[in-house]
Amino acid sequence: MDALGTTLGALSDPTRRAILARLAVGEASVTDIAAPFAMSLPAVSKHLKVLQRAGLVTRGRSAQWRPCALDAAPLKAVADWLDGYRRFWTESFDRLEEHLQAPGREG
Amino acid sequence: MDALGTTLGALSDPTRRAILARLAVGEASVTDIAAPFAMSLPAVSKHLKVLQRAGLVTRGRSAQWRPCALDAAPLKAVADWLDGYRRFWTESFDRLEEHLQAPGREG
Repeated sequence: MDALGTTLGALSDPTRRAILARLAVGEASVTDIAAPFAMSLPAVSKHLKVLQRAGLVTRGRSAQWRPCALDAAPLKAVADWLDGYRRFWTESFDRLEEHLQAPGREG
Repeated sequence: MDALGTTLGALSDPTRRAILARLAVGEASVTDIAAPFAMSLPAVSKHLKVLQRAGLVTRGRSAQWRPCALDAAPLKAVADWLDGYRRFWTESFDRLEEHLQAPGREG
């Protein structure tokens, strides 16, 4: 698996995306992150490890709390890759718009 | 797995992303798609089925050729999801730029 693939694989799980959404609000401990999920702490830790391997989550150095934080750099790599395909969905919207604005079209 | 997760999972494989890159050039038969890969036709077909399940590839109705085509709609859904995180990487670039332009900084 390449780096982009590792990122996309990590993001494919809805729980892991929910964890990122939580970290977008700010740093959090594993216990804080686990709170809203009906999931054991080890299960959440496993998801966090996948996110860490993908470089999407970093852990603080402080031995006691070790807060988790979002690192968006791999997300930028996904956005850059997607940009190569952007014309495919903007073009289809342009065509739809042309169709809707075509003279003679009514109602 | 939710729809976004199915898309991200399908995209996590580098061969499947290479297939999409080929289809971005235009429609192609399974044989055409398979040509550049050191991979059996059934292996390529399996990747195509994953892409079809994710709605990223459609197949023509013609019984004989059934060309594969790119459908970018699921990619737009990924881009829309990523947009919620865009500020995280633009902010870090803004901070870098501020740092580089800070008065007193030299060469």
